Formats: sequence, C-alpha cells, structure tokens
Amino acid sequence: MSPLSNDRLLRALLRQPVDRTPVWVMRQAGRYLPEYNATRARAGSFVKLMKSPTLAAEVTLQPIERFDLDAAIVFSDILTVPDAMGLGLYFAEGEGPRFERPLRDAQAIDALRLPDPDTDLRYVMDAVRECRRGLAGKVPLIGFSGSPFTLACYMIEGGGSEDFARVKQLMYGDPATLHKLLDLNARAIVRYLDAQIEAGAQAVMLFDTWGGMLAAERYKAFSLAYLQQIVQSVRREADGRRVPVIVFTKGGAVWLESIAGIGADAVGVDWTIDIGEARRRVGDRVALQGNLDPMVMLTTPAAIEAEVRSILDSFGSGSGHVFNLGHGITRFTPPEHVAVLVDAVHRWSEPYHR
Amino acid sequence: MSPLSNDRLLRALLRQPVDRTPVWVMRQAGRYLPEYNATRARAGSFVKLMKSPTLAAEVTLQPIERFDLDAAIVFSDILTVPDAMGLGLYFAEGEGPRFERPLRDAQAIDALRLPDPDTDLRYVMDAVRECRRGLAGKVPLIGFSGSPFTLACYMIEGGGSEDFARVKQLMYGDPATLHKLLDLNARAIVRYLDAQIEAGAQAVMLFDTWGGMLAAERYKAFSLAYLQQIVQSVRREADGRRVPVIVFTKGGAVWLESIAGIGADAVGVDWTIDIGEARRRVGDRVALQGNLDPMVMLTTPAAIEAEVRSILDSFGSGSGHVFNLGHGITRFTPPEHVAVLVDAVHRWSEPYHR
Repeated sequence: MSPLSNDRLLRALLRQPVDRTPVWVMRQAGRYLPEYNATRARAGSFVKLMKSPTLAAEVTLQPIERFDLDAAIVFSDILTVPDAMGLGLYFAEGEGPRFERPLRDAQAIDALRLPDPDTDLRYVMDAVRECRRGLAGKVPLIGFSGSPFTLACYMIEGGGSEDFARVKQLMYGDPATLHKLLDLNARAIVRYLDAQIEAGAQAVMLFDTWGGMLAAERYKAFSLAYLQQIVQSVRREADGRRVPVIVFTKGGAVWLESIAGIGADAVGVDWTIDIGEARRRVGDRVALQGNLDPMVMLTTPAAIEAEVRSILDSFGSGSGHVFNLGHGITRFTPPEHVAVLVDAVHRWSEPYHR
Repeated sequence: MSPLSNDRLLRALLRQPVDRTPVWVMRQAGRYLPEYNATRARAGSFVKLMKSPTLAAEVTLQPIERFDLDAAIVFSDILTVPDAMGLGLYFAEGEGPRFERPLRDAQAIDALRLPDPDTDLRYVMDAVRECRRGLAGKVPLIGFSGSPFTLACYMIEGGGSEDFARVKQLMYGDPATLHKLLDLNARAIVRYLDAQIEAGAQAVMLFDTWGGMLAAERYKAFSLAYLQQIVQSVRREADGRRVPVIVFTKGGAVWLESIAGIGADAVGVDWTIDIGEARRRVGDRVALQGNLDPMVMLTTPAAIEAEVRSILDSFGSGSGHVFNLGHGITRFTPPEHVAVLVDAVHRWSEPYHR
C-alpha cells in the first residue's frame, strides 16, 4: 500500500494536531455530480453500481479528483448487511431503500444468520481494495455501515417510515425479540467493519439514521448500547496505525454526552447544535464531525463561506474537528459549491491550528 | 360563563398545587374516534368541519364526553391564519395541509395583510364560544395557533417538505424578507390568540412543528424570537384569571433552556428527552407538558400504564407537569387506550401531589 500523503482526517479524528481542519462531505459521491450520474447510468441501477467493485471505486474517486477533499468514503449503502442476510435490497424511484422480504415475525428474526463478509459481502471488500489502489495514498478511505437499530428499522418496516410504528410496537411490546435482532446486527456489523478494515478502510463510521426518533431511555437501550458493543469489539488498528471510529446519530444532539461516552473516537453532529456548545459538552473525550446545514450548499459562495467561518469560529482553536455537512449533500447542489466549501474550510481554518 | 369545576390544567401550567397530574392529548379530537369520523363525514371535508363552528364544537366535545380528560382544545388547524391571509388552505388526501397560493417571491410577502380575527377568522371565535357553552365549566378550553416560523414554512413551500429547501434558501439568502414575513405572522397570531382568549379560550398554545429542523442559531433568530414576541404581547388574563401560554417546538429538546427563557408559562417536550432531565434543565422557570411517545398508544394497556408510571416517576413530586403525548395521537390508536392513559395518569400521579 502507498504511504498516506494526507492524514489530516485521521489525525483530527484522534484529536492530534493538524495544519488545517480536514473536510469531507456525506454522500460526496452522489447525484449532484454529472460524472456520478454518467457512471450510474452505465451501471443501470444504484444496487448494480454498488455491487460492481470497479464502478463503485470509480464513483468513490470522482469527488477526490474534482475537489481537494481530505477523505474518500467507499461508495456503498448503509443496508448492505441485511441485504447479505437475504432481505433483498432495492430502491424504489424517489422513495429510498426498501427490502423485498422484510421481517414480519419473531420466526423470521430467528431464521437470520450472520453473513460472511468475505463471501456474502465480497463486492464491498473488493471495492475497498480497488479504492485504496486508486487513491494511492492521496487521502484516507472511510468504510461504514448503518447502525444496528437503523438496520432493524428498515428490516422490520421494509423501508423508510414516518412513525416507525412496526419497530416501535415491537420495541414496546416484545423488547426481547428486538434485542435479539439488534445483537445479531451488531455482531454482523463488527465482522463487516473488521473485514473492511482488513481490506484497507482506514477509518470507519456508523450511521444511525433513525435512532433520533426514540424516547430518551429507549435510545440508550436499543441504539446506543449496540453502537457501544460495536465500538468495543471492532478492530481498532491496521498497518500499525489506529483506525478511528465515528458514530453519528442524526437528531441525537440532545444525548451528546451519552454518545460521547461509548468509546468512539469521534461523534458526528447535525446542524441543530452549535458546534462550540457541542465541544463544551463533550470536552476532550471525542472529536466532532459536522455540522453545516446541507441547505446552505444551495445558496451562494458568499453565504457558504460565511457559514463555514461561523462554524470554524464556534469550534475555536485546536484539533478535534472534521468539517462535514450535518446530513448528506442534496442532489440539487451545484458541484462548484463543494469546491467553495473545501477551499473555505482549508483557508479559514488555518489560523485556528497555529 | 359557568365557573370552572376542574382547573387542574390551569393550575399545573402555572405550577400551582394540584391533586393529580392533569392530562390531555394532542389531536384528541381526531380520526381514532369513530364519532369524529362520523361528524367529519357529515361535514364533507376537514376544512368544512373546521369552518363550521357547530360541527367543530361537536368534535371538540366528543373526547371530553368519552374520557376523563382535564382539558379541551378547540378543533381547528395550525394554519388558519395564513388561510385568512388568502393562501387557500386545503388538505390533499394522505398528504397533510397545503396552500393553493404559496408565497413565491418577496412581492407576495409584501402584499400580505393582517387578517381581522373577528371577521376573517370569525368561524374560530364562534367555535370557541360554542365550545365554552358546551363545556359548561367542566374543563378549561385551550386555543392555539401554529408558530410564525411553522406558518412561514407552509406559506413558502406550499405544504410539508422533507428538507424545506425553499424556506432555508430564503433564510440563508434573503433573511430580511423572511424576517418581514415572520414579524407579520407574529403580529397576526397575537391578534388571533387575543381574539380566542376574548371569545373564551382559557389557555393558549403555540405549535412550532418545524422549528426543530433549523440550525441552532437560526432557530433562535427565526423561530424562538417570534415565539417570544408573541408571548410578550399576547393577552395573559381573562375573567380575572391568568391565561397560561404553552410553547412547543417539536424536536427542540436540545434548546430547552432557551425555550424556557422566553416568558411562556409552559413548554411542551417531545419524547426524545427524559422529562426528569427536562425538569432539571428548566428548573422552576416553566411547567412542562408531555411526553409519551404516541406509538406507545398502539401497544397494550399494561405497556401504556408502565410508560405512564415511568414518566410520572421521572418528573417526580410536585406540580408543574401536564401529561400529554409528545406529538399528536395517531389514527390507529384504539379509543379504549386513551381511557387507559387518562386513568393511569390520574391514579398513579396522586402520590406525587400529596
């Protein structure tokens, strides 16, 4: 493997000194990029694109070629693990991910087996290896998975939901069955992330998209506990270097102290919390990743720059901040606005690292 | 007017001693009740039901007749004010509220005028008066409106939205124009709530359904500041008795201290925060209203009772708690579960008020 020429991301995630605040963008390989749309059209569908290691690596590298980003994230989906369990992932146009065979009873949960990442999810490991070769040490590669609870939401509901009535009825009515599923998901995710790290992922991130709709104590018991199980079990070193773990619960700002206490290196925060306040609340326990409102990316270069400066100023001096949006970039973002963002983060953060 | 025989709600909102924790349910006059559906069918549509004072009063009273609730809330919608400004409120089946003529530019905002509640919104005032007559002092009547920011969201987007891209682009790109709209909305809402209080509303509530999707500082500037403007201007007394004001920002738990500081008597909280923690954070500044996850209402009487006891226990001893859900009750709730809820709150709260 080539030596890493830009390790700002890994250093910032471990709160080690950096020259500038690193920046990457959730969903940076996505539909706002014409070259992504061209590759996706060639693939035929999102799932085919994701399952082709060559094409997945191609779109992973596209934003790295176009912008001065400090990290790549392997092009994939948060729901690969349940797909490998046989649930049948597909994307209904304009509707987000769905499963052909959602879990409809406790028997269906009992029947699930742990996937073998090196065979059942080999396409992801191959994509990771291709990405690492393509990156050639330019920036680190992030691997990821959805969280155990977020996976369970889609596995039980069969897709997104406004109120997650099925999941919540199981949670309130038969918690033991939901715990069984969450434990299985957590063990599957540990294997999956370990395999990604073995294949070359240099940091890993857990996306807890739906934990934020839980009642406070339920969040701790049904989402955070399983994030902690993963953080405490996953491989944390590769090639003699620490592999940082980032956890991100969308809508979880109210529980920030608890999230910061599970042993992850970094915590993602959405835009509902001022990042300076978030920093005061987590102290020196974790680095923070975030937290620009993605809607700012639809405005003007001047407005983007002003928001970037405001976030950098709020975080203040020192390391421990990875700049990002608070959610995925929208497909309507002009690509040149990402260049504005990256340039602004690098330029204006420099004084905070002197 | 008849003297009030059950004033638990008003006393709890003012943190005065009560014998039991009062309870009411957001959207308690709604589609989970067969008698509501029958009246709505007679009316022909939601909007016709809302605009008929007789039928609106009829559905307002239905849950009071069926359950031992401690408050009625006038049957209406959070968007009556922009409808009275001429935007044309309607409900697309299964899609929530929409406006026929959303605001598409600054000129449209400049052209808006303040509605006269006694003429343009007379149907609400007539409904309030009919409700008071029908209640005959059994329980107090709550009046309400959407918040200035929530109104602006629907006025600009034309309906609900996943990302509120139009509102946020205006906010980041032309904040002065959005402030102009918010100020107009706030002034219109003050007149509207004053008129409801004049007509007989004994407490008023502001529903800030969408403030929770704002970035921290933007929430303060574009939603909370206008809630404060209303709280500081609205009439706070009628018939020699204080009229409490409740503010509720869905998803606002992370900003709880700020919300508690604007001068309202009570703050609504959704289920994402433990109510005991919320109480510690607000201290003795405000009462709290909430915060059962509405999905609990879909489970079993035993599970509902357990959750009620847990919330009561977390809040602890003393007044200052109005039991409610953290969001509107869903249409799939068995009506008998509301009886279970009300009974459990009354029965199990009694020791906390000795």
